Amino acid sequence: MSERDPEQTDRRAGRSGVSRRGLLVGAAALGGAGVGGVAGAGLARASAADVPAADAAGQRVVSPYGAHQAGIATPAQGFATLVAFDLVARTDRDALVRLMRIWSDDIGRLCAGRAGLSDTEPELAQVPAALTITLGYGPGLFTAARLESERPSWLAPLPPFGVDRLEDRWNGGDVLLQVCADDPTTVAHAVRLLTKEARTFTTVRWVQHGFRRAPGSTPPGTSMRNLMGQVDGTHTIADDEMDGLVWVGDRSAEWFGAQPAWLEGGTSLVVRRIAMNLDTWDELDAPAREDVIGRRLADGAPLTGGAEHDDVDLDAVGDNGLPVIGAYAHVRRARSDDPHQRFLRRPYSYDAAPTGGALSDSGLIFATYQADVTRQFTPIQQRLDELDLLNQWTTPVGSAVFAVPPGFEQGGWLGEPLLG
Amino acid sequence: MSERDPEQTDRRAGRSGVSRRGLLVGAAALGGAGVGGVAGAGLARASAADVPAADAAGQRVVSPYGAHQAGIATPAQGFATLVAFDLVARTDRDALVRLMRIWSDDIGRLCAGRAGLSDTEPELAQVPAALTITLGYGPGLFTAARLESERPSWLAPLPPFGVDRLEDRWNGGDVLLQVCADDPTTVAHAVRLLTKEARTFTTVRWVQHGFRRAPGSTPPGTSMRNLMGQVDGTHTIADDEMDGLVWVGDRSAEWFGAQPAWLEGGTSLVVRRIAMNLDTWDELDAPAREDVIGRRLADGAPLTGGAEHDDVDLDAVGDNGLPVIGAYAHVRRARSDDPHQRFLRRPYSYDAAPTGGALSDSGLIFATYQADVTRQFTPIQQRLDELDLLNQWTTPVGSAVFAVPPGFEQGGWLGEPLLG
Ligand code: HEM
Ligand code: HEM
Repeated sequence: MSERDPEQTDRRAGRSGVSRRGLLVGAAALGGAGVGGVAGAGLARASAADVPAADAAGQRVVSPYGAHQAGIATPAQGFATLVAFDLVARTDRDALVRLMRIWSDDIGRLCAGRAGLSDTEPELAQVPAALTITLGYGPGLFTAARLESERPSWLAPLPPFGVDRLEDRWNGGDVLLQVCADDPTTVAHAVRLLTKEARTFTTVRWVQHGFRRAPGSTPPGTSMRNLMGQVDGTHTIADDEMDGLVWVGDRSAEWFGAQPAWLEGGTSLVVRRIAMNLDTWDELDAPAREDVIGRRLADGAPLTGGAEHDDVDLDAVGDNGLPVIGAYAHVRRARSDDPHQRFLRRPYSYDAAPTGGALSDSGLIFATYQADVTRQFTPIQQRLDELDLLNQWTTPVGSAVFAVPPGFEQGGWLGEPLLG
Repeated sequence: MSERDPEQTDRRAGRSGVSRRGLLVGAAALGGAGVGGVAGAGLARASAADVPAADAAGQRVVSPYGAHQAGIATPAQGFATLVAFDLVARTDRDALVRLMRIWSDDIGRLCAGRAGLSDTEPELAQVPAALTITLGYGPGLFTAARLESERPSWLAPLPPFGVDRLEDRWNGGDVLLQVCADDPTTVAHAVRLLTKEARTFTTVRWVQHGFRRAPGSTPPGTSMRNLMGQVDGTHTIADDEMDGLVWVGDRSAEWFGAQPAWLEGGTSLVVRRIAMNLDTWDELDAPAREDVIGRRLADGAPLTGGAEHDDVDLDAVGDNGLPVIGAYAHVRRARSDDPHQRFLRRPYSYDAAPTGGALSDSGLIFATYQADVTRQFTPIQQRLDELDLLNQWTTPVGSAVFAVPPGFEQGGWLGEPLLG
């Protein structure tokens, strides 16, 4: 294994140079001596001229520690598994504290490329591959912990929408883990370890496997394409908007009202499983598809011109006197005049085995992070429910809402401000 | 997109320098002018000193043409989806020829990073990521084509084994596609296109999604680890043994007897879905696990010493007078004295959503290629069925056998020697 500079590695391995937090850190930042041989060796400094080793993407680490949990502002890795757990009847606040301590310890180790304390496949921990593990609490956790008064007002199932065709097997959950990495074996191993640690406290409610692109398969800075072929993820939240729009704190209190104190630095997660009806979508030609979204298929640029990240001109009118971006277009409908009705989308594609004679079972694991579900997410989903041409080809089949506690420091544990 | 040398890229992207065939070829070898902009531009020659672009892994191409199909001797890519189809009643030989022509054309294009002729998501074709598409024929195809006399004698369900707990939903199939690439979106797109093209001829019988490691996550030449944590794939078939052990031809005729003429250059594929019982496996400590296989967990080296690729010494006796590698060890039992009872393993891990309160649903999509199923695969599976300690933690839940036609050339089509 050759030595290398993690930042250098990061740029070459296909991430944009801009990172929201000090995402990719060396062994030292993960606790110095605490970091085991493999990850440590891989992260020693080297000259910038060094050629990246072929396992550079595998040895990248993202610190799990800080004011906010990792896996939210972290540029989306290639693979995600989301696991929702139900708490078993005997899991009370004390039991939850035990679970949180165990998981927090595991997370600290796994994200550094080390085995968990009770890891029975330690060999599979040696490739951290930018692993992040993000924890959320469903409404049921507050009941189990007898902390109903600490439950954020928005922490409940979303109101029903006309487009919904929800199946209970994809809904809800008392606890959520979002496990992301640039390697699918790394994700599978982390999920298995964390699920096993939780076996006396929980049962598995649902598991959703998602993917974007493998590391190194698209140029840096390129947004992913979803399975409809669209460039997805263009219009996102700027770094300096994260406080308030995503992280709960003073700014979010000013905009949306006060939230329980324990949630400061935390956020919320909405997970919608949205099936794509590709059979009918495939009947549309390219101009019709572009019209549905309001952006070009080739590069994701607005239909009003420019490059992917240029502004969409919703007022532009074509030669025919009609708006270039239709009244029904997804990008128009997904925007409100209220600049606070925005959130961070962090979706993954899914491609499950089709059943019942279908050709495919594909869609988006549409995951969004926002400070306040009711004030930010729900109004947009309502707008889209009223009018969005894309609805003809997409169907929400699952829905869940979670409160995402703030981050933790080494030696501390996740959820301490609520449960501690 | 910067220019680069494909071989150089290949080495850096994590493949071993040894390749069985001229696997990674430039645009010219894929048909010159026929190769579209994206793949072509990505494969122009550049100086060896060039830094590989971040999308190098995505632009790698594997030629689909030649005496043998791609995806067999090809070093295993990161992701595989296997799709088994049943033929609908009206699909006769003429219809099969039409399907083969359509698929062959699609395969030529997709593997070069170009859209299929009727591709409705052409944008998703732009990242070939070493895509290979491998075709197999189940027993039912010979009935449908009224070519029973051309069916290889071994093309039938495997005999039942004591370890089997087969579920019909993972068994059989009239036609098989193995779609592999180093990017999961590439695989999903190719599978969808090929399935759609086949919709009037077939229905989907089963789909299995598998993965190994993402490109760039482990050093070149490192074997994959399966979800039991073991180094898997060490003892394989040498390049100069492929003729005879894998490819049907003069050598296989000499060893195993004559096969139908159309199969020359082809082979057979056995797909066993094997569940890992990780809950009980996790109760074993590391020495016990090493004993089960006969190799070290840390690096896959034989328990009799040396490095991963050194010979296993089955005669070695320990201080206690007992064989170092037990009579029940997987590597001992998986070997026969007959040097022809060997085959090419090309397995992928699977990690499906657990059901019924289970913690996980993981295992191997155990895919093997051999010239003659009855003479090579079945005797080994029988040996393992009689005695193999590993059986305690593994359960075959699906089984299928396919004849794999030889390769094709540009302008020709897959299966022509049989159906043409
Ligand atoms: C399968 C379902 C969906 C697909 C395929 C999809 C696809 C897209 C695409 C291609 C874009 C344009 C590129 C971009 O800025 O990312 C976009 C934008 C957006 N979508 Fe969706 N979307 C889906 C569902 C939703 C849902 C359910 C919501 C909200 C509840 C939503 C909210 C947004 C927002 C806020 C934008 C950015 C609009 C802007 O400010 O320009 N999308 N979506
Ligand atoms: C989930 C099920 C299985 C697992 C986890 C597994 C795992 C392993 C491992 C770790 C090795 C040693 C490293 C290597 O050479 O690849 C190995 C070797 C081998 N396995 Fe398996 N195996 C499984 C099923 C099977 C089955 C069903 C067969 C045959 C029908 C088989 C045939 C072989 C052979 C031929 C070798 C090489 C032995 C040698 O020549 O050294 N395996 N397997």
